[in-house]
Amino acid sequence: MPPFTSVKQRLHEKGIVLPEPFRPVGLYKPVKIVGDRLYVSGHGPWVGDVPIIGKLGWDLSIKEGKRAAYHAGLGILSTLENEVDLDRIDTLFRTFAMVNSSQTFSSHPEVIDGFSELMLLAFGPENGVGARSAIGVASLPFNIAVEIECEFILRRAS
Amino acid sequence: MPPFTSVKQRLHEKGIVLPEPFRPVGLYKPVKIVGDRLYVSGHGPWVGDVPIIGKLGWDLSIKEGKRAAYHAGLGILSTLENEVDLDRIDTLFRTFAMVNSSQTFSSHPEVIDGFSELMLLAFGPENGVGARSAIGVASLPFNIAVEIECEFILRRAS
Amino acid sequence: MPPFTSVKQRLHEKGIVLPEPFRPVGLYKPVKIVGDRLYVSGHGPWVGDVPIIGKLGWDLSIKEGKRAAYHAGLGILSTLENEVDLDRIDTLFRTFAMVNSSQTFSSHPEVIDGFSELMLLAFGPENGVGARSAIGVASLPFNIAVEIECEFILRRAS
Repeated sequence: MPPFTSVKQRLHEKGIVLPEPFRPVGLYKPVKIVGDRLYVSGHGPWVGDVPIIGKLGWDLSIKEGKRAAYHAGLGILSTLENEVDLDRIDTLFRTFAMVNSSQTFSSHPEVIDGFSELMLLAFGPENGVGARSAIGVASLPFNIAVEIECEFILRRAS
Repeated sequence: MPPFTSVKQRLHEKGIVLPEPFRPVGLYKPVKIVGDRLYVSGHGPWVGDVPIIGKLGWDLSIKEGKRAAYHAGLGILSTLENEVDLDRIDTLFRTFAMVNSSQTFSSHPEVIDGFSELMLLAFGPENGVGARSAIGVASLPFNIAVEIECEFILRRAS
Repeated sequence: MPPFTSVKQRLHEKGIVLPEPFRPVGLYKPVKIVGDRLYVSGHGPWVGDVPIIGKLGWDLSIKEGKRAAYHAGLGILSTLENEVDLDRIDTLFRTFAMVNSSQTFSSHPEVIDGFSELMLLAFGPENGVGARSAIGVASLPFNIAVEIECEFILRRAS
């Protein structure tokens, strides 16, 4: 039985409109599902057809980085919706979040909270908060500001 | 049936005292458990309230880096103990270890063995050694020297 | 029942000869298996006893990087073959691919396709393409050009 308030309804109530699903650049799938495990490939922050690019510590403020993480999250939700009924998602298991950063940047958690706050909103406090690591990387594809991958657990078909 | 020598007893015999469990900075859980899978969020090397900071190749020697990896491991053991009976842990499945490093550092395995040797000590040769990757990253939160995340498998409740 | 064309036969038909299996430098296992999950530790691009080293964006062209990713893939296939019958592998679940890169490199997907194309060849379009993230890291052990880890799912013993 689905929860009384669906994920889509919660997003709708917050005025959140999901973007078009992400098309992988390269030989991989945006999502791989095996049993009750759903793995989301690394997503960047696309706003329409334009990525948010640049390095934290060089080009972008923490606030701009947090917005990028939020947009990566919107892309992930869109990818999820394109693959499964969002209400089939039981819980966010883990997030691995990479910040395109200078060698002295140190505010990764604040940036990645832009993603985690969206997951909390979508899936609630019980299931929308998982394990997480946030790190700073030397470079990312297309110079995107952040790249985020995560694993969700699906509800068993009832 | 638990093993004859418990994890806590092994640590005690080696004179190892676990620190206070880690409190996440940011919106995530230190550990997420689903079924028999236990995922540990990225842990840094805290000694009391003070993190070991700096870059391998710039600020810290390999020996200091290895000590940092050891302290990240102590933090992970403390987090584990705070969440589950340590004897419920069946095996270390994988470790992903990130070294805050210069662009020319190349001794990551030696640094991360500081973590892996502690896991071997705690869980034994059969279950304390898993798959592992060790890499050098451009930056880490608070400029910590290492960040380590890992996945353990729990024993099925008997 | 194994597929009609085995993985080894497909590799053989393409003239692909697997190298000697990789010996870990450091305290970890090249592969960890729990249930139907098989995790492959980070593999670098070894050609015989010599690694392909250098940074994308500094030392190596995209073509050379792609070749490195291919060789990391050969090493992973060799490690797999050393641990399990390759035909027991059901599907590639996820790949995490790290490119040793300058701070401005941006063609990670093209480089890592050198690995993914080999997996496609070995395991076919249904099972050889999984989720993937590709990132640029500040440094890697021994200054290897790429490091790739991945998770496979095994067929249940029949």
